[in-house]
Amino acid sequence: MSTTTSTQIQLASRPTGWPTHDNFQTVQVTYEAPKPGQVRVRNEFVSVDPYMRGRMNDVRSYTPPYQLRERITGGAVGRVVESSAEELPVGTVVLHQHGWSDIIQDDAASFRAIPEVPGVPLSLNLHILGMTGMTAYVGLTAIAGLKEGDTVFVSGAAGAVGTAVGQIAKLLGASRVIGSAGSAEKVALLTEKYGYDAAFNYKDGDVRGQLAAAAPNGIDVFFDNVGGDHLEAALAAFNDGGRAALCGAISAYNETSAVPGPNNMSNIITRALTLKGFTLGSYLHLAPEFQAKMGEWFPAGKINYDETIVDGIENTVDAFLDMMRGANTGKMLVRVTK
Amino acid sequence: MSTTTSTQIQLASRPTGWPTHDNFQTVQVTYEAPKPGQVRVRNEFVSVDPYMRGRMNDVRSYTPPYQLRERITGGAVGRVVESSAEELPVGTVVLHQHGWSDIIQDDAASFRAIPEVPGVPLSLNLHILGMTGMTAYVGLTAIAGLKEGDTVFVSGAAGAVGTAVGQIAKLLGASRVIGSAGSAEKVALLTEKYGYDAAFNYKDGDVRGQLAAAAPNGIDVFFDNVGGDHLEAALAAFNDGGRAALCGAISAYNETSAVPGPNNMSNIITRALTLKGFTLGSYLHLAPEFQAKMGEWFPAGKINYDETIVDGIENTVDAFLDMMRGANTGKMLVRVTK
Repeated sequence: MSTTTSTQIQLASRPTGWPTHDNFQTVQVTYEAPKPGQVRVRNEFVSVDPYMRGRMNDVRSYTPPYQLRERITGGAVGRVVESSAEELPVGTVVLHQHGWSDIIQDDAASFRAIPEVPGVPLSLNLHILGMTGMTAYVGLTAIAGLKEGDTVFVSGAAGAVGTAVGQIAKLLGASRVIGSAGSAEKVALLTEKYGYDAAFNYKDGDVRGQLAAAAPNGIDVFFDNVGGDHLEAALAAFNDGGRAALCGAISAYNETSAVPGPNNMSNIITRALTLKGFTLGSYLHLAPEFQAKMGEWFPAGKINYDETIVDGIENTVDAFLDMMRGANTGKMLVRVTK
Repeated sequence: MSTTTSTQIQLASRPTGWPTHDNFQTVQVTYEAPKPGQVRVRNEFVSVDPYMRGRMNDVRSYTPPYQLRERITGGAVGRVVESSAEELPVGTVVLHQHGWSDIIQDDAASFRAIPEVPGVPLSLNLHILGMTGMTAYVGLTAIAGLKEGDTVFVSGAAGAVGTAVGQIAKLLGASRVIGSAGSAEKVALLTEKYGYDAAFNYKDGDVRGQLAAAAPNGIDVFFDNVGGDHLEAALAAFNDGGRAALCGAISAYNETSAVPGPNNMSNIITRALTLKGFTLGSYLHLAPEFQAKMGEWFPAGKINYDETIVDGIENTVDAFLDMMRGANTGKMLVRVTK
């Protein structure tokens, strides 16, 4: 049992608009030997996610705001390196929500042991096999009520959630899946690697026109990670009885003034549409169902993924900011290297 | 069996913005004696409804647009005055969708016989005991999933649907019902006659602030007849898991350019809200359930209503325009007088 120093990233001030490095501070925290019931975990991968931007604001939401001068919490996967808790011996791989740090020391109950499967990178527990994949599954099934033969539109389709949504939609019987992404390379990836039937670059503008061209028979399901003009385009393209799973609105997260909503809201009535916002926290009871499906699909090679990896816990803020700007393909992760 | 002349109102041209008399034409149609299987019906009351404005536009919707130089169709109640169909003898009271006319002659199958109950005006079949009341019931139950103890906000609460919504919400266990209306007189009526716990005049402005003041603990259900700033106010006031039944958007029906949507759409995600547009046509299977409830409430004196009656089929366009401007309290009806 030893003393160690952990590098942690805290919220220093609340961002207005786009966050900058000034909104964060890196601190060194010294841990004595773990107390009885505690373990020390060395993180291997730390997650940066769009929802974190919302928690940096001091507003009411489904999760409480981050507190100033406290560690940014969030998903991470690591390995127990010291243990005073017999249920988590040294060497155990654990998933947890302690967030942006290289080393975490806390009560064993705040970590969840997960199996280490040969050939399956631990990082996948932070995306396709974890919350991200489950967000895609729950959004399509419990929220949007995907039916066989549906045409599905996914905004921000080359991100961690979007790449999962397209594939899962196809596996669940969607007849046509359309995606938007922010570069020509990502658009190509959607159709070549992720099974999208059509894709377009929203930075080319006219999202409504591009979606209409890609969906000549309309859309039945919209999985939204972006909001703004994507939602407006979807409302214009919906068939009667269409359903939207609203998962994210990254286009608005860094706006400093209120952004007007879609100018075609009346379609919600005339086409009998349902828009449903969700966050995974209320659907954790569906984890066994998701894991059963993914346990079938993933080993059968039916699920592709991408990771954009930034090395070094000291670069976590850069990774987060790059992710907010769309620099990632698939899941953005920080690999703890020291 | 005789020849007769019917006065009918047709769509003459499609309105741009607010309709005017120039968009309509009154024509005289001569009917010979009813053919076998036909009946002749003299209308007693003809309905004018907000949804009709949408059908005057040539756009895709849940109901096809009205055709130029054809009668405006819609709900009406009348009595068989000549019959060549034994299932509908002379004197039978019928409900139908033939619309704006004093006399209708058509196949018996296009009319539905309804019971004539002593002391119950026939006109009620066009609102509280008919589609309007059922719209209120279905919106609260099947669409918004009203639960006991919910706080409910109703926009346009002094209209035909709104007066029904407030009362039915209370009968189904809502703990607090808040309504908006367009005059001080209507606001008073909501709390004095219709069981609303609080009400405000949206023409005083600041709908968001007025709603927040009336709902210090937030709202759980929103029944929207108005759209626009009412929807924005509701999105700001919703508790987590809130549900909106979007029934009408009368604020936008006569706009000539697209109106921006609410500027707080991201609340749909952060508060896990559901917005569901509906029209009654998809929920007609719930008619027995509605009739059973109303058959209990109405005879027990638990349901109030108002009618704003315009006399003379030749004044139907005025009645319609006045209703669009909010001149009615409760249901706007045309009484056929000649």
